[in-house]
Amino acid sequence: MSMDFNYYLPVNIVFGRGKVSSVGIIASDHGKKALVVTGKSSTKRSGLLNRICSHLKKSGIEYTVFDKVPQNPLTTTAEQAARIAKDNGCDMVIGVGGGSVMDCAKAAAFIAVNDGDINDYIFNRLKSGKALPIILIPTTCGTGSEGNGFAVLTNPENGDKKSLRCNAIVAKASIIDSECMMTMPKNVLASVGFDAFCHCMEAYISRIAQPFTDIMCEKAMKLIADDLPKLFKGDNNPEYWDKISLASTMGGMVINTAGVTLAHGMEHPVSGFKNAVHGKGLAAITPAVTEASIKGDPQKLAFISKVLGGNNENDCAEQITKFIDSLRLTCTLSDFGVKESDIDMLTDSCMKVSAAGISYHPVKFDRSHIRDLYLKSL
Amino acid sequence: MSMDFNYYLPVNIVFGRGKVSSVGIIASDHGKKALVVTGKSSTKRSGLLNRICSHLKKSGIEYTVFDKVPQNPLTTTAEQAARIAKDNGCDMVIGVGGGSVMDCAKAAAFIAVNDGDINDYIFNRLKSGKALPIILIPTTCGTGSEGNGFAVLTNPENGDKKSLRCNAIVAKASIIDSECMMTMPKNVLASVGFDAFCHCMEAYISRIAQPFTDIMCEKAMKLIADDLPKLFKGDNNPEYWDKISLASTMGGMVINTAGVTLAHGMEHPVSGFKNAVHGKGLAAITPAVTEASIKGDPQKLAFISKVLGGNNENDCAEQITKFIDSLRLTCTLSDFGVKESDIDMLTDSCMKVSAAGISYHPVKFDRSHIRDLYLKSL
Repeated sequence: MSMDFNYYLPVNIVFGRGKVSSVGIIASDHGKKALVVTGKSSTKRSGLLNRICSHLKKSGIEYTVFDKVPQNPLTTTAEQAARIAKDNGCDMVIGVGGGSVMDCAKAAAFIAVNDGDINDYIFNRLKSGKALPIILIPTTCGTGSEGNGFAVLTNPENGDKKSLRCNAIVAKASIIDSECMMTMPKNVLASVGFDAFCHCMEAYISRIAQPFTDIMCEKAMKLIADDLPKLFKGDNNPEYWDKISLASTMGGMVINTAGVTLAHGMEHPVSGFKNAVHGKGLAAITPAVTEASIKGDPQKLAFISKVLGGNNENDCAEQITKFIDSLRLTCTLSDFGVKESDIDMLTDSCMKVSAAGISYHPVKFDRSHIRDLYLKSL
Repeated sequence: MSMDFNYYLPVNIVFGRGKVSSVGIIASDHGKKALVVTGKSSTKRSGLLNRICSHLKKSGIEYTVFDKVPQNPLTTTAEQAARIAKDNGCDMVIGVGGGSVMDCAKAAAFIAVNDGDINDYIFNRLKSGKALPIILIPTTCGTGSEGNGFAVLTNPENGDKKSLRCNAIVAKASIIDSECMMTMPKNVLASVGFDAFCHCMEAYISRIAQPFTDIMCEKAMKLIADDLPKLFKGDNNPEYWDKISLASTMGGMVINTAGVTLAHGMEHPVSGFKNAVHGKGLAAITPAVTEASIKGDPQKLAFISKVLGGNNENDCAEQITKFIDSLRLTCTLSDFGVKESDIDMLTDSCMKVSAAGISYHPVKFDRSHIRDLYLKSL
């Protein structure tokens, strides 16, 4: 087989415990006034937001805080943040939080300097290569948003959940400090950690996988399979936190290049319409999708199975189910209120927002197959 | 152990057989007139230079050819190329050739827009973050220059062989097309392929190695150990050429972040003063350095040994010696005309130009140890 690929991901990773204290110095390379984007409570409760603001002050960086990012942020949330950035003369955006926060920060940095409807950029009807400089500080280890140029947003008018994708929203610096993550509740850890595992697994089996993403997928899946259950069970060894943080960032990086495949593609409509927790939505969908995909890439599914303690491609779905169970994520789509009567609408949305993921999946699935997989996941 | 690292390498890799035909389209993103830097004969003989020029013409890119790059290029060679770029109003530099050519192209792109003595930039007495945009097309698979921000030059006044290092000379695009390499003579392949292996091995054991470089080192060492001997023996399977080309680029990438260690550090004075072929110089030095370094990182040396077919750290040097022999690279420093009376001068030069590599080496060696290792390699 001929190797044929492009690899370009200019992310700047600043990794280590305590590194968040360098945010002021790093920010001073990129601007004078920051829009600090964060969630409604956890970064305040943990004191992290205050610490970051005081580091910014020390380095002479002014800032405005936008703390209204909900789970599964809307396009309108990002527009609101962008307006505040513009109104306050911010020349950079700092995102402090989980995936929703980072995605909203990235989208705000983009909207602040690009005219037109953000939905047009999301659906590639408009293109731009500019955005305000972005600094990201993840407080969960799952989304990997700090490692890529994606920002997933939901359109409140039609429920479309889809990502804005461009190199302009790759962070100028991503400060990955596992000490910022250690306050995460264990159920959140399980859900985001499983999301990270899915990023790696899906990028690994993607039709556009390539050597640089493969080696990161393999490494990150091993780290998550080995250490996420330990953390979940309460062994808070800081080394495990480092490893899961690294794996999660790698997961974000690999999907930038190799994309996600069908499980993510099918989950987006679920969390878009039902506001489900993304990692739980994946837990509901992934086993059925995996079971139906064995023939697409037996060699890589065998690798995934072995990483999880299995034997070969044929027990991969079973191993994933066990892994989900060990993280207490076992659930079905019904748990999010999805009814059989919703399946057609979810399938339509999936075909629309996840065309890329469907095309990267190692097995070709059409509308009726996908409908079937939703039904199996009920 | 706490993980603590930075990773930033904005290289844009365009990989695949036949990809060289996209050079015109890629170049048109970066400028209007290129200085095409190449060597004295091989890219003309193979027709590659002509093909590239015609692709540039088709895309409306003007160009001037500088074809005077020798093996181990001098600072003055790069200055000459930069002058031609300036005199001809070139706004980008395209390097087509092996490591010497690419390094010269990168340095010329740097010198063309920075005032002052290039030696001051090499020794970090001056700093700059700008250069003309660079496109690289490697025709050998060894140096990895297409994957990093290094340009090794020799100062003709004092023989110092040391690299200019900055992100400004990371290529805007590196077109890695293994079909451009297949005309390489087998003795060149052996020498550059072993250089690539050394890059990976040295970055792997470096004190500043980190997860992103480790996974690339492991992958690339496996590819080289498996497939370089096959190519050398004459099995020209294009897949092997792809794999060795990829491994070589990875080797270039890992040293950008994790550096080289003592073997490269000791070799630079040898090829600087004696104009030895770099890969052969490494073959003369690496076994003695490895044997003396076992205690520094037994786990990683065991991995290297196993990749080469050995058992553990203790037979790593022996496996490397066998690998060198399988590539018909077995030699000593005496073969390059080095005499015992040269050793003090080489040691002095090594201490001066390779302070970083010495400090990254997993075992702390002082001047007398290094002198000893030169003697052992005679």
